Amino acid sequence: MTVSDSKNGDDSDRLEKLRAAIDGIDEQIVSLLAKRQREVKRVTEIKKARNLPVYHPSREEDLISSRRSQGASAGLEPCFVEELYRLILRQSRVEQTQRIGSKAVLPGGVILIVGGRGEMGRYFESRFAEAGYQVRILDKSDWHDARRLCAGIHAALISVPIDQTNPIIAQLAPYLPKGAVLADITSIKASPLSVMLKAHEGPVIGLHPLFGPTTSSLDKQIVVATPGRHLAECQWLLDQFTAWGSVVLTADAREHDEMMDIVQALRHFASFAFGRFLYRKKINLERTLDFTSPIYRLELGMVGRLFAQDPSLYCEIIFASKQRRDLLKQYIQSLQDSLDMLQANDKERFLEEFGKIAEWFGPFSDQAMRETTFIIDRLIERF
Amino acid sequence: MTVSDSKNGDDSDRLEKLRAAIDGIDEQIVSLLAKRQREVKRVTEIKKARNLPVYHPSREEDLISSRRSQGASAGLEPCFVEELYRLILRQSRVEQTQRIGSKAVLPGGVILIVGGRGEMGRYFESRFAEAGYQVRILDKSDWHDARRLCAGIHAALISVPIDQTNPIIAQLAPYLPKGAVLADITSIKASPLSVMLKAHEGPVIGLHPLFGPTTSSLDKQIVVATPGRHLAECQWLLDQFTAWGSVVLTADAREHDEMMDIVQALRHFASFAFGRFLYRKKINLERTLDFTSPIYRLELGMVGRLFAQDPSLYCEIIFASKQRRDLLKQYIQSLQDSLDMLQANDKERFLEEFGKIAEWFGPFSDQAMRETTFIIDRLIERF
Repeated sequence: MTVSDSKNGDDSDRLEKLRAAIDGIDEQIVSLLAKRQREVKRVTEIKKARNLPVYHPSREEDLISSRRSQGASAGLEPCFVEELYRLILRQSRVEQTQRIGSKAVLPGGVILIVGGRGEMGRYFESRFAEAGYQVRILDKSDWHDARRLCAGIHAALISVPIDQTNPIIAQLAPYLPKGAVLADITSIKASPLSVMLKAHEGPVIGLHPLFGPTTSSLDKQIVVATPGRHLAECQWLLDQFTAWGSVVLTADAREHDEMMDIVQALRHFASFAFGRFLYRKKINLERTLDFTSPIYRLELGMVGRLFAQDPSLYCEIIFASKQRRDLLKQYIQSLQDSLDMLQANDKERFLEEFGKIAEWFGPFSDQAMRETTFIIDRLIERF
Repeated sequence: MTVSDSKNGDDSDRLEKLRAAIDGIDEQIVSLLAKRQREVKRVTEIKKARNLPVYHPSREEDLISSRRSQGASAGLEPCFVEELYRLILRQSRVEQTQRIGSKAVLPGGVILIVGGRGEMGRYFESRFAEAGYQVRILDKSDWHDARRLCAGIHAALISVPIDQTNPIIAQLAPYLPKGAVLADITSIKASPLSVMLKAHEGPVIGLHPLFGPTTSSLDKQIVVATPGRHLAECQWLLDQFTAWGSVVLTADAREHDEMMDIVQALRHFASFAFGRFLYRKKINLERTLDFTSPIYRLELGMVGRLFAQDPSLYCEIIFASKQRRDLLKQYIQSLQDSLDMLQANDKERFLEEFGKIAEWFGPFSDQAMRETTFIIDRLIERF
């Protein structure tokens, strides 16, 4: 055995010992996390009894700020400590919301979900049932029983495909108790809202939950509410979403629809068209991933994600209205304008256009840069 | 004072006490993290002395698996524990890499960075200097001194805009020592590689670091290497990237360029065209963000990110070659095909196409769904 071998052997022993020490520290950390969770459970019981909100921004910021300074004095990277605590606090909010959310804002409330056997219908069935509401389902085959199903309900939630929303509202309205809240969760709002207002005399509100049935927690998820009539009588339903941790954004139905033309239809159509081009060119996706830095991986991922989901959902969103289809046509036509630029190898024009657009994007692009950089770091960390 | 007030008062006291207890636990957790970091530092010293890699996948997986089971028995969500530990391990790798990376693979090596006052040039100047290399810069105004700057160098790294790469290689070559490695870091590879092989007799390798100068750590970042000549004599340079934590992917220059047509040019062009349309329609970006679920926020963020960056970089990428511009033209033309579909409100055709594309995307879309869902959860947690 040479001196060097013996030194290597010593190093291996030392490495083993250090790793055992690290394992011991990690065990203590996980025990403390479990202990922390038990204390949070006690906090939650008080919050639940006193109807206090789960999310307490100033308490969270104070807590993070204290941990950052403690970490910094102990030689830890403060941003690392902050990220860790954002994760811990998020988990804590999710657990608190699950516990508190199981309390109904309208105790004894009866909810009818129309289209309750669809994916979103089943999702809300579970949420309302967990919260202690009595939930009834009216699906395609239940119309013969509509009178009984509607008797004594406090709210009817229309959860059917866009193109069936208006006829279903008209079909349901005659059975509704006058005081019941009529609400739909379709992703366009102006047209169903006007149909609901015509069909039902009582409280009316349009809702658009900006999340899908695979969302594990409603924490911080946005629900757009477009008021129709008797907003005060709809308030308990909005409060229920807030109790689940959602953020309720009240907006005009027409403004909502214009925004969705962009953030849903245009974005999804662009992803669809991109995926379609990759398919037509028969690009070797697997191999492109080898050459993919996190940012491209994420961008391809956003496209791939679309094609893992329900085609009819995207079809409905893209073809929802003539206004929407016209916007998409304008988008395609605007791409045409770039053909000349590419043909002529006109870099100057590209730079000039880029400059104008960048100026117009303004502070949003800096924010986007910060947010996506954060996200890319998370991607690297995970995959 | 009523009974209820007094009860509320008791609750407030209890809440305060519970919060103090949680603060105490958090203080212990942060102390343990600092202690953990000190132990890791000791591990790093051994790894550095023995040239052991920072990333030890099986050790990390074992560690995570133990913490998951411990967490689960203690009533914690195992996925939460795993996320937390992925973050801790990533931070640990970054710190280890910083410490180990400051060791040169070729001790006493002299590196010439041509274009060293550009952003990427300065980035690599810092990395190599930190690692203990002697770094020299040859920029526009230094050509009169080229002979002296090239004397005794072990590698020349060409870090200039794409359209200047080939002429600069030709201009530099006569000054290079025969044994020096000639490498470029341009984002296209076939053409510079052939020019390098013609201009220089010694070791030649094309490099494409798939990251920008704002990257805080090279951890897990990909560097594509396209071998030219005398690969064994270029190995130390590749090993240096590996020592910094990068993943070196060896590929054929032509294949690299084809892949980049897609993952860089097409993707960036699509984002550019999308941002340009938002600009032309003068969409109220601020307001769309209010209506934005994390997924749309992320998609808009990817577009906004582009416009926060250097226009000339994107201009170069998009206009890099005729082949590339032709691909982009095909992309624009393929969008035209959708006009009819939208005009005719042809949902059936949309569903049929969607189905074919989804089938072709196959397992990639499931992977994309998993990855982007993970990312979206991180976005919610953070913003």
